[in-house]
Amino acid sequence: MRDRQQSIAIFGPGLMGGSLLMALRQRRPDAQLRAWGRRPEALRELRDRGLADFCSPDAAAVAAGADAVVLCLPVDQLETIACACAPAVSADCLVTDVGSVKGTVTRVLEKIFSGHRNFAGSHPMCGSEATGLSAARADLYEDALCVVTPTENSRPEMTAAAAALWSSVGARVVAMSPAEHDRAAAIVSHVPHVAAAALVGLLAGENPDVHRLCAGGFRDTTRVASGSPELWTAILSQNRAETERGIGKLIGILEKFRLAVVSDDAEALHDLLAQARSAREAVMHGD
Amino acid sequence: MRDRQQSIAIFGPGLMGGSLLMALRQRRPDAQLRAWGRRPEALRELRDRGLADFCSPDAAAVAAGADAVVLCLPVDQLETIACACAPAVSADCLVTDVGSVKGTVTRVLEKIFSGHRNFAGSHPMCGSEATGLSAARADLYEDALCVVTPTENSRPEMTAAAAALWSSVGARVVAMSPAEHDRAAAIVSHVPHVAAAALVGLLAGENPDVHRLCAGGFRDTTRVASGSPELWTAILSQNRAETERGIGKLIGILEKFRLAVVSDDAEALHDLLAQARSAREAVMHGD
Repeated sequence: MRDRQQSIAIFGPGLMGGSLLMALRQRRPDAQLRAWGRRPEALRELRDRGLADFCSPDAAAVAAGADAVVLCLPVDQLETIACACAPAVSADCLVTDVGSVKGTVTRVLEKIFSGHRNFAGSHPMCGSEATGLSAARADLYEDALCVVTPTENSRPEMTAAAAALWSSVGARVVAMSPAEHDRAAAIVSHVPHVAAAALVGLLAGENPDVHRLCAGGFRDTTRVASGSPELWTAILSQNRAETERGIGKLIGILEKFRLAVVSDDAEALHDLLAQARSAREAVMHGD
Repeated sequence: MRDRQQSIAIFGPGLMGGSLLMALRQRRPDAQLRAWGRRPEALRELRDRGLADFCSPDAAAVAAGADAVVLCLPVDQLETIACACAPAVSADCLVTDVGSVKGTVTRVLEKIFSGHRNFAGSHPMCGSEATGLSAARADLYEDALCVVTPTENSRPEMTAAAAALWSSVGARVVAMSPAEHDRAAAIVSHVPHVAAAALVGLLAGENPDVHRLCAGGFRDTTRVASGSPELWTAILSQNRAETERGIGKLIGILEKFRLAVVSDDAEALHDLLAQARSAREAVMHGD
């Protein structure tokens, strides 16, 4: 396997896959880009925009001869496509994905690609509530964090190849185990998604007069709740244990706030708010 | 009282008061602007920037002769300043505030200004986690929603004067009772603030490795948690009953999510997420 893949096959031309094609075309004009998609219109658009050199709805044809296969599909669709392309994947071809959950996905994909141990999982943390090729942009990965999740089954050169691929489109790469990733992703992304959806649910249960008062704070706090319900059902389901644990902890913290409010304990309330503010400032710097 | 106030006294040159001075100077160059502040440096800055024609730390001196007094102070500081300026407020002078809670504030201020029934409360919903004159901007009120909260004690011309004042700086004005406002504000602002702070609290309790994964979603969802702990302790305390009710309801909705996740009920989870997305789209339009 070459350190710098020359032929890269992207499966799924949505926000993540489309952005990856755009970034590779821009930053690596020498690379041969191959694309798999289900819908003929999407493939035609990729061809018309010069974003792929070879396009097909035939997974094996797209994977054949590639140095890297990147599965840019929702987590519940990975297995089917992986099985379809596996026979055509060469021994030295990196296989990676962009799924938001890594434990279940890694177990399934490592098994499918166990013959050559080609799989090393990835999670570029730059998704948004937008979806589809129309939301894709060449700079999506620039300065984004990308978690690469090797296991004891991963061939080290595959992990290195995944890291090199994401670095080549501008991402900052960190490595974690799939379990560490899933625990962290529950806290920074999956539980916040649930909280945002719950806050919208709270609003939806009120008199419509209340809706008129939604201002910038509500808009930002609930932005992620506009994400795809299908995609997020799959993510939360596949990260079930960590999501459940996180929601439970969040409820515990909310109970502390409720108690401080009900008992008119201004000091306790102030402490909770001050701790949150300083923790946020420490984590976010220069927001 | 003139419909269009010629002499306007702003108390508290922070984000809200400073922005109001800037907006009035820009949009109503004929108005005489008076400003009260505690800190000499802030008053000097207002004078140097030409944002006020008369500045003083003496509340009565600033209120004297004004057509409108606007108390731009945190909700827990309103009473003291209102008492200090009340003797100097003329019979036809509008008194309003910008407090985020209206029930308690209205009861206190209506009593202080009961002699001439000058008080009509306001809540321009354009605050942010930023505070102070340095964060103030002339367009803060442009297209912002401003709730005016008359009661059976409010003189109708005072309510009209408050509405005219906010309209003159570009806000969209709606009227609600203080109780309706407080219930709505709990849902769209106070409980979301608590949820954002709780999500940061959840993160703060985790291994620092987790912090590295915070991406744009977490940043937006928790933005409001960077607001002033002092200001928010006062807001949540003064809107105690509605905040408590809202947190309780939010916990109930989170329990539904948790149950759907734990019981692997993808249909229930999808429904919760899909309802949240469509409710958010309906409320926010064109976000």
